[in-house]
Amino acid sequence: MTLELASRMAGLKASEIREILKLTQREAVISFAGGLPAVETFPAEDILSVSAEVLTKYGTKALQYSPTEGFPALRDAIAGRMNRNLGTRVQNQEILVTSGSQQGLELTGKLMLDDGDVVLCESPTYLGAISAFNAFQPRFVEVATDDDGLVVEDLERCLKEIERVKFVYVVPDFQNPSGRTWSLERRQGVMELIRRFEVPIIEDCPYAEVRFEGNFIPPLKSMEGQEWVVFLGTFSKIFCPGMRIGWLAAAPDLYKKYVLAKQGADLHTSTLGQMQLAAYLEKFDIEKNIEGIIDLYRARRDTMLDTMTEEFPPGVSWTHPQGGMFLWVHLPEGMNAAELLVDCLKEDVAFVPGAPFFPNGGHENTLRMNFSFSNPEKVKEGVKRMAKVLRKAMENR
Amino acid sequence: MTLELASRMAGLKASEIREILKLTQREAVISFAGGLPAVETFPAEDILSVSAEVLTKYGTKALQYSPTEGFPALRDAIAGRMNRNLGTRVQNQEILVTSGSQQGLELTGKLMLDDGDVVLCESPTYLGAISAFNAFQPRFVEVATDDDGLVVEDLERCLKEIERVKFVYVVPDFQNPSGRTWSLERRQGVMELIRRFEVPIIEDCPYAEVRFEGNFIPPLKSMEGQEWVVFLGTFSKIFCPGMRIGWLAAAPDLYKKYVLAKQGADLHTSTLGQMQLAAYLEKFDIEKNIEGIIDLYRARRDTMLDTMTEEFPPGVSWTHPQGGMFLWVHLPEGMNAAELLVDCLKEDVAFVPGAPFFPNGGHENTLRMNFSFSNPEKVKEGVKRMAKVLRKAMENR
Repeated sequence: MTLELASRMAGLKASEIREILKLTQREAVISFAGGLPAVETFPAEDILSVSAEVLTKYGTKALQYSPTEGFPALRDAIAGRMNRNLGTRVQNQEILVTSGSQQGLELTGKLMLDDGDVVLCESPTYLGAISAFNAFQPRFVEVATDDDGLVVEDLERCLKEIERVKFVYVVPDFQNPSGRTWSLERRQGVMELIRRFEVPIIEDCPYAEVRFEGNFIPPLKSMEGQEWVVFLGTFSKIFCPGMRIGWLAAAPDLYKKYVLAKQGADLHTSTLGQMQLAAYLEKFDIEKNIEGIIDLYRARRDTMLDTMTEEFPPGVSWTHPQGGMFLWVHLPEGMNAAELLVDCLKEDVAFVPGAPFFPNGGHENTLRMNFSFSNPEKVKEGVKRMAKVLRKAMENR
Repeated sequence: MTLELASRMAGLKASEIREILKLTQREAVISFAGGLPAVETFPAEDILSVSAEVLTKYGTKALQYSPTEGFPALRDAIAGRMNRNLGTRVQNQEILVTSGSQQGLELTGKLMLDDGDVVLCESPTYLGAISAFNAFQPRFVEVATDDDGLVVEDLERCLKEIERVKFVYVVPDFQNPSGRTWSLERRQGVMELIRRFEVPIIEDCPYAEVRFEGNFIPPLKSMEGQEWVVFLGTFSKIFCPGMRIGWLAAAPDLYKKYVLAKQGADLHTSTLGQMQLAAYLEKFDIEKNIEGIIDLYRARRDTMLDTMTEEFPPGVSWTHPQGGMFLWVHLPEGMNAAELLVDCLKEDVAFVPGAPFFPNGGHENTLRMNFSFSNPEKVKEGVKRMAKVLRKAMENR
């Protein structure tokens, strides 16, 4: 059986992260590889209580087809929370409920990209976005980044020089994979360019509410020119990921197109799931749940950073994320994180090599570590195991 | 704000069915327009009981990310039911859980179609498939159909003469929109061609288990050459549609590609939803639920057919579906069902014009009627209202 598939499938290969996750499912492995939130933070009892409530209140309506746009009470709650917590001024009719924010990425690619169109992205950028956009065969151009975020001058150069730019894709808060956060000045500078060049920008914002320290920095969607910003949000990191409920906020013209694209993709997101989430948001205090997440993750991040400082050999450097779930490590030039991973797996510890986060390759000496999933004891033990392998590898150079 | 979207979006327009559904949501309207299952058939109490059970049994695991392929116990149950009820011999590792079978259609288009590739389909064909495939800009070629299903000779001609055919898309049982079912001979004839031409065929099978009369006819997926068949199934018509859980069964090589495509689209279908459904299938008797659906829909179909026979004027003809949810009406040549709909809405009754089900246009004198959603009293009253408008329209010709 030889099948002739669409040409887009040639570029689609198994995500390294997912394949590695499979290798690290042995109980003994301490994994900093995945992007899993801590299960302790999922409000299982509260969800149990609202699932009964929803089925009693709405009966069979909770099980019927429902509008593509989403369950009205959930759209209201999402718009309200965004405006309260993030300083935006979105309307409920600008909110589209999606099957996780991964679907927001997929729909964006479907809506915007013809073969050979250009996506401007951070360097590195989120792997899930690369894989979602890749299905529509764009060319990725990586814009320079530093510790303050996207380098405005480099974005300006790209917008001037490069043709067929369809949109800019960014994760300004506690970025996956780097853990870095854009300064206010960078956000303002980028939005000035967005307004000047009239190009859409996709603001992927899964972590902004999980801030451990430092001051809140407003999202692009709250700034002048917000009509050019498509905001992607998710309940995966502040509630639970398994129900696959995210959202996007887009200006009316674009919004209509997103609705059509979602209609063709899956008609709508689970009616029951949306009603359960809406009931949870009404009955329980998600902000309090988020406080618990912040405390838990902060302690894990601190343990990771402290243990790395104690144990990692000189010549290795890393970021200090103020929130989110990831930090980013630079090994000395010439070292290869994928090779290091093979040795680490022998010591039952795992991470993700950094190279796949650069759509145009290179950067084999980088890697990503997740600090949200493992408890402090495991974090400490895992970092020690990694440090041992690292020291040996560096001695052998 | 002028946005330059992907060229595929030019072909994507709001589904007439969805737009009409919005118009018909007034309480007074008797709607034969939608494709809604009857809410009375949703096992809400049983679902309530299993939702508590699942959260108690699996705890926070029910809320965490899970494999793209689907929840293992659900994949087992799906493969088991298919083999028991439909005579297939699929393995659980050939089952991919999808976010409704609409997602199966979307992923098929994504996997298989480059711009200008050809999809062979029935004439008429399912509107949701047209809209899912259209995003990948294929050319639809309609194969002739009659009361026994796809005309084998015409399929052979198409496979011989037409280049770039990527797959054949069919709904062999109680088709949406026509209500027609393929004979065994036609299925065998089509599969002979599929084997000979080595072309994939997508068997969309949402209604096969909802048969009111006549003998079971085995699906294409149970026949020789089944490795060329991608089977799309759904729980929307035999359980409930609001949870958006469907599946596909595909041979291993193709299966891997579907998994990659789904990973980029939404990572996985709701963990909690899948566990709830798996628990329902284990604890309750879905076959008994389906018997109830069959009895309910048979009575509604009978009422619709009887009232049409009594009330519809001569010159109008319709199909006699042996199962499913829809029947198909031919008005006299020269009449326009879309115009008739406008008049019907004034009398508070609705249906769907047939033309959109023909990807290459024409057939303005056809229409689709749904008999599953309204109770017999409403079916009777609605058909009477339609008949009144029809008689008037035919007198005025």
